[in-house]
Amino acid sequence: MTRHLLSIDDLSLDDLDELFRLTDGFVEVGRRRIPKVPALKGRTVVSLFYEDSTRTRLSFETAAKRLTADTMTFSVSTSSVKKGESVRDTVETIEAMGIDAIVVRHASAGVPWQVAQWSSASVINGGDGWHGHPTQALLDSYTIRTHLGSLEGHHIAIVGDIKHSRVARSDVAAFTKLGARVTLVAPGTLLPPSLEGWPVEVSHDLDAVLDEVDVVYLLRMQQERMTEALVPSLEEYTVGYGLTRDRAARLGDHVLIMHPGPMNRGVEIAAEVTDLPNAVILEQVANGVPVRMAVLFWLLGVGPPAVDPEGGE
Amino acid sequence: MTRHLLSIDDLSLDDLDELFRLTDGFVEVGRRRIPKVPALKGRTVVSLFYEDSTRTRLSFETAAKRLTADTMTFSVSTSSVKKGESVRDTVETIEAMGIDAIVVRHASAGVPWQVAQWSSASVINGGDGWHGHPTQALLDSYTIRTHLGSLEGHHIAIVGDIKHSRVARSDVAAFTKLGARVTLVAPGTLLPPSLEGWPVEVSHDLDAVLDEVDVVYLLRMQQERMTEALVPSLEEYTVGYGLTRDRAARLGDHVLIMHPGPMNRGVEIAAEVTDLPNAVILEQVANGVPVRMAVLFWLLGVGPPAVDPEGGE
Amino acid sequence: MTRHLLSIDDLSLDDLDELFRLTDGFVEVGRRRIPKVPALKGRTVVSLFYEDSTRTRLSFETAAKRLTADTMTFSVSTSSVKKGESVRDTVETIEAMGIDAIVVRHASAGVPWQVAQWSSASVINGGDGWHGHPTQALLDSYTIRTHLGSLEGHHIAIVGDIKHSRVARSDVAAFTKLGARVTLVAPGTLLPPSLEGWPVEVSHDLDAVLDEVDVVYLLRMQQERMTEALVPSLEEYTVGYGLTRDRAARLGDHVLIMHPGPMNRGVEIAAEVTDLPNAVILEQVANGVPVRMAVLFWLLGVGPPAVDPEGGE
Repeated sequence: MTRHLLSIDDLSLDDLDELFRLTDGFVEVGRRRIPKVPALKGRTVVSLFYEDSTRTRLSFETAAKRLTADTMTFSVSTSSVKKGESVRDTVETIEAMGIDAIVVRHASAGVPWQVAQWSSASVINGGDGWHGHPTQALLDSYTIRTHLGSLEGHHIAIVGDIKHSRVARSDVAAFTKLGARVTLVAPGTLLPPSLEGWPVEVSHDLDAVLDEVDVVYLLRMQQERMTEALVPSLEEYTVGYGLTRDRAARLGDHVLIMHPGPMNRGVEIAAEVTDLPNAVILEQVANGVPVRMAVLFWLLGVGPPAVDPEGGE
Repeated sequence: MTRHLLSIDDLSLDDLDELFRLTDGFVEVGRRRIPKVPALKGRTVVSLFYEDSTRTRLSFETAAKRLTADTMTFSVSTSSVKKGESVRDTVETIEAMGIDAIVVRHASAGVPWQVAQWSSASVINGGDGWHGHPTQALLDSYTIRTHLGSLEGHHIAIVGDIKHSRVARSDVAAFTKLGARVTLVAPGTLLPPSLEGWPVEVSHDLDAVLDEVDVVYLLRMQQERMTEALVPSLEEYTVGYGLTRDRAARLGDHVLIMHPGPMNRGVEIAAEVTDLPNAVILEQVANGVPVRMAVLFWLLGVGPPAVDPEGGE
Repeated sequence: MTRHLLSIDDLSLDDLDELFRLTDGFVEVGRRRIPKVPALKGRTVVSLFYEDSTRTRLSFETAAKRLTADTMTFSVSTSSVKKGESVRDTVETIEAMGIDAIVVRHASAGVPWQVAQWSSASVINGGDGWHGHPTQALLDSYTIRTHLGSLEGHHIAIVGDIKHSRVARSDVAAFTKLGARVTLVAPGTLLPPSLEGWPVEVSHDLDAVLDEVDVVYLLRMQQERMTEALVPSLEEYTVGYGLTRDRAARLGDHVLIMHPGPMNRGVEIAAEVTDLPNAVILEQVANGVPVRMAVLFWLLGVGPPAVDPEGGE
């Protein structure tokens, strides 16, 4: 049966362990003179992006190329989508060409599940609406794990626009599954209408929370939220919920500062804060590549990764 | 001398036989664990697309990558075409870089011939205006051949907007050259002004034709034809010329239902009809890859394809 | 320390010699049946283009692929730049993914220096504002060198819109460093406000200069200059500064005619002139690939290029 990666909810603790173990191996591959392995030679990975994204697309492409897979990009602006082709036709067409995995990003929640239904290729959710972004949650968890040993028993604050954030939803699922305690910190207007069933605490007081956390995870604050009157002004948002220089100074040295990018420096995070030694934002980006290699290998690989000692084909 | 693939008319029956024989081999390659051969290693294929296209571009890229060629894309929206660079300068520039084949798609008929004149690289017509789309005709012929043994003596109805269809023109040329009997079925407004010299029959009565054909080939019906008053409404078009569920039910099990995609489900073809076992629309897409591998190998390869039994480089 | 190629000014004569020597080797590679070497296997080169460009992007990609590097494209229209991501964040993100070289093109002068500051990857200036385009100057110098033996003591006229031309600035730097005498030929409105420190002569009389030069290097004349009232009309520009058929006929057979492309045929150069045997415009394009291979290898390679005699991996 074809494996997909649609949601963190589909992954067992064993799956997460296996993915992190694979990631460890691919981090090691990344340090070699030739950071490539022939593990997915002959496989083809298509990026099917209905929304623009630098980081996610380049990160998946880099991961696929390091596994010696072929990659192709299908972005909405240069496609027959303009001719009114439905997502279904596009997927069936791609799949008929013998593609092995489709990374799909779409502005509507749930599209990756539809794609998985229409396709015998493996489908990876590269972000669907406000719903989920599972590989981001994997790389976030992996990054925390490398610094704190595990997530078990650690306290993570996720700060900002939870309501419109697929990253927050996937992170909550992954962090709590891995045993962390999660507190969402946001004004009421930026929380989902209902948090029933979310295994989290909620606070509107960032300063109170900062004293007791191991990780501060900041979400991007979009300009648009202001025009939608969800926050009075970006300045006021920063006063209440931004990680300013003063707030960052109060954090212990062991407290990780994280952000999924792209950052709005000066809004949710002060420019100087991004340069602190405990700000691991670029490490998150760096870990994205081996984490996505692990996901691709886990979905498409057969047997243990054929890690050539020379890194050659 | 450089070989090109500009039109079905340029191909002899021997050429078609050779292309189909090569395709057979590449279909077999596609079934391997590593569906690649090093046949075109070191060759570079550029897609020069002045019109968007998912299927054709991805299909050619997949084909080139499976032959271990390098691929590059030059699409009109990210090019110095915006600076007013002429097609000629673009082609001469690409060619001077040492590119081996150019797949060109352009809204104007005849552009691939001009490109071939300006370039010492092999030129493949990837669709020019209403004029031709030879690789589509090859994959259509190959698909029919795999089901009916050959096209010789079989009766094929091509239904719909013949006038504006490059697929129809190339299909008529290929199907009749291979010995099929072809009937065009369309309202007069969607037929070319003159059919002189076309070795086809014409009908305005789809129901009468359906009883005696082996293949029903449906063309995409564009919204625009309605605003141009060539058809009174899409609904009325469907009543007269759509392959509705009722019409499909009258077809024998052996009658192939084909479409070049992207489909307008509910207009020229009912949604349920696309799922019938004799609808081979996705097989057409699938055959596009080995057919285009055959074309690229036929144009650029030297000697018999170096088909490594391991599929490795 | 990471090496960059930001400006011709940073290169010593020894560097230029080494780059030309490497280019000679890669020209030879380009003549092989399989024009590839595994010299940069496992390295990744990203094109970060904030301005469109056919020639430069395709030329760098071809060069990287011939060195067996992986390539990725990041163009402004399909990126989170739209979300307001700063150049800095983009660069840090790309770099965190483990990319080895970034080719950057930007409408603002100086951006490549900023990129180099933010990144531990090698940065190549692929054109910044009106400021510089060093690989163009290298390929221009290499082209002249193959015809005239060296630039030493030869007289080169650069004709046209010097003021807005990054090509002119880099060419002046390279040509004079290599010992050529350079005369700029343009109306006063198309010269920079000050030429202090430029080791060049200036003329407003193309006809007088043509009698004594070894190279006529024509710059592209942009439509916009007319609307900006810098020239009265393109026709009048052609009369004063275009290389018309008559002017070209007066040149000795040994006098090279050059242009960086894309050309405005009929404005700065007559259509027939581009076909003369001493017009080496397509040779410039052709040399762009081995020159850029040399630059990439010089920045990223370790040891002498592992030139496999079979050109195989």
